[in-house]
Amino acid sequence: MAKILVAYYSRTGNTEKMAQAVAEGAKEAGHEVELKKVNDVKPSSLLDYDGYVFGSPVYYGLPAAPLVELFDESVILHKRLSGRVGGAFASSGNTGGGNETTCMAILQMMLVHGMLAVGSAEGDHYGPVAVGSPDSRALAQCKALGKRVADFAAKVKN
Amino acid sequence: MAKILVAYYSRTGNTEKMAQAVAEGAKEAGHEVELKKVNDVKPSSLLDYDGYVFGSPVYYGLPAAPLVELFDESVILHKRLSGRVGGAFASSGNTGGGNETTCMAILQMMLVHGMLAVGSAEGDHYGPVAVGSPDSRALAQCKALGKRVADFAAKVKN
Amino acid sequence: MAKILVAYYSRTGNTEKMAQAVAEGAKEAGHEVELKKVNDVKPSSLLDYDGYVFGSPVYYGLPAAPLVELFDESVILHKRLSGRVGGAFASSGNTGGGNETTCMAILQMMLVHGMLAVGSAEGDHYGPVAVGSPDSRALAQCKALGKRVADFAAKVKN
Amino acid sequence: MAKILVAYYSRTGNTEKMAQAVAEGAKEAGHEVELKKVNDVKPSSLLDYDGYVFGSPVYYGLPAAPLVELFDESVILHKRLSGRVGGAFASSGNTGGGNETTCMAILQMMLVHGMLAVGSAEGDHYGPVAVGSPDSRALAQCKALGKRVADFAAKVKN
Repeated sequence: MAKILVAYYSRTGNTEKMAQAVAEGAKEAGHEVELKKVNDVKPSSLLDYDGYVFGSPVYYGLPAAPLVELFDESVILHKRLSGRVGGAFASSGNTGGGNETTCMAILQMMLVHGMLAVGSAEGDHYGPVAVGSPDSRALAQCKALGKRVADFAAKVKN
Repeated sequence: MAKILVAYYSRTGNTEKMAQAVAEGAKEAGHEVELKKVNDVKPSSLLDYDGYVFGSPVYYGLPAAPLVELFDESVILHKRLSGRVGGAFASSGNTGGGNETTCMAILQMMLVHGMLAVGSAEGDHYGPVAVGSPDSRALAQCKALGKRVADFAAKVKN
Repeated sequence: MAKILVAYYSRTGNTEKMAQAVAEGAKEAGHEVELKKVNDVKPSSLLDYDGYVFGSPVYYGLPAAPLVELFDESVILHKRLSGRVGGAFASSGNTGGGNETTCMAILQMMLVHGMLAVGSAEGDHYGPVAVGSPDSRALAQCKALGKRVADFAAKVKN
Repeated sequence: MAKILVAYYSRTGNTEKMAQAVAEGAKEAGHEVELKKVNDVKPSSLLDYDGYVFGSPVYYGLPAAPLVELFDESVILHKRLSGRVGGAFASSGNTGGGNETTCMAILQMMLVHGMLAVGSAEGDHYGPVAVGSPDSRALAQCKALGKRVADFAAKVKN
């Protein structure tokens, strides 16, 4: 089993719903999960997990600044998160509104930490995306992502 | 007025419909427009335009290989297309299916040619995207993009 | 002539040197230029310019959080910066250290504002990049970018 | 142990040298490795490996068309490569010449296949990059990438 952090930034509650579904998916698969707002994540605490799923609304095609700031501050752990497993999700106001580029930006930050970034052949390829309030399609993908990242994290850590 | 090339790759006809709408938008605004399949575009002919709009279905998160190949071959004109204006559009099978990253890849190829890449504050930010057959929303954005790229191309060439 | 904002974030001074060269390039070409740290830029003041060049060190493959935050806050002007001209530059500790993805992230934020993003056929394609302290090559490219963005901004605003 | 494919496109021989170093790194770590030009890779044969490292020169900020075409054709295996491990490398003519965006484009194609994309905290973050002929720094990173992808592939396949 793996220990997973699901961290998100949310103002309207849309991204929060997605985060809850991600956490649920990992839990139901038997993993240990912590669900936190990014503002409640201490950079040093990032050491405590085997895998990570980060989510954000789209602001100008990228994750919200507080999530970017958490990664900036995580430099105190640089090289120590290498080889862990990560995934992303995003929520936007419109189709074509930056969801994919936001997921890719999150995965990119994870790659710089030396992590393994998880894609999907079946669903939203770079991570689940929702336009407005997440529908059942988006939430099902979030659950699947939570399980998927946690399962891979369990394999990789051994 | 500007002279614009709208070039596309299409198998199912979805991207072709978008291309037609882009061309229509530029024409209705009074510009000269050529609409071509990428396989019918000679790299050397790219010199003849003030602005370009390229569209593709999404294959593995990127434009289809024939469009990438056209850019590869356009190296014979390198530096000579600098300062021209470009836009992109894409069509995918699913939400989160790579539309945004495909538009960004097209804009990126244009940036390497020294072009000015056109975004949008109102619609799909990196270029119009359609999931499956383009609906009226997507086609309206395609028309707007055609006009927009052509109008900017007219301004910049003077 | 155009009025240009050159805004940057810098801790070590490397990005600041690049910003100064960008500003110099625009000024020498006869444009009006303001050079500011991103923390000194009021979001509402962004309305006052025809063109923008933003620069940042690379933090986890993206611009530093304060620059991302400025864009987040610039939402109060959404749609009102459409059609303006933008460019980017970046400074990293290493080759392959995220300079290109940082420039692309800045250009992406500009595209979401509906701006025209400026690439280069001759130099660093997505914006000038420096590894460590900027050398004469990087600084020459910064000067060229300042002139280039300002010249295009002057053309487009008319 | 894992079975790894190292596939590359190369005209000048620069990317080929990098590919050889990647293959060597995986072999020295005890893995089984096949080294092939992309034109010699049958799409159906992609099923035979646990991990993949693809490399290309930069053409207009993206991998060369033959590599893109191989992914286009790999759609016949869609969903069947999910959960495998992938890495990228690139070679360009200049600093800021598109190496990072080329590596990211390769990783993106892998994510769409549902693979785990491997980053690096220590070296070039999205994959080893060379400007011109690969120097000892670039080749050392290529060797490390080969070992790294193969080691993770071995863990994940079990």
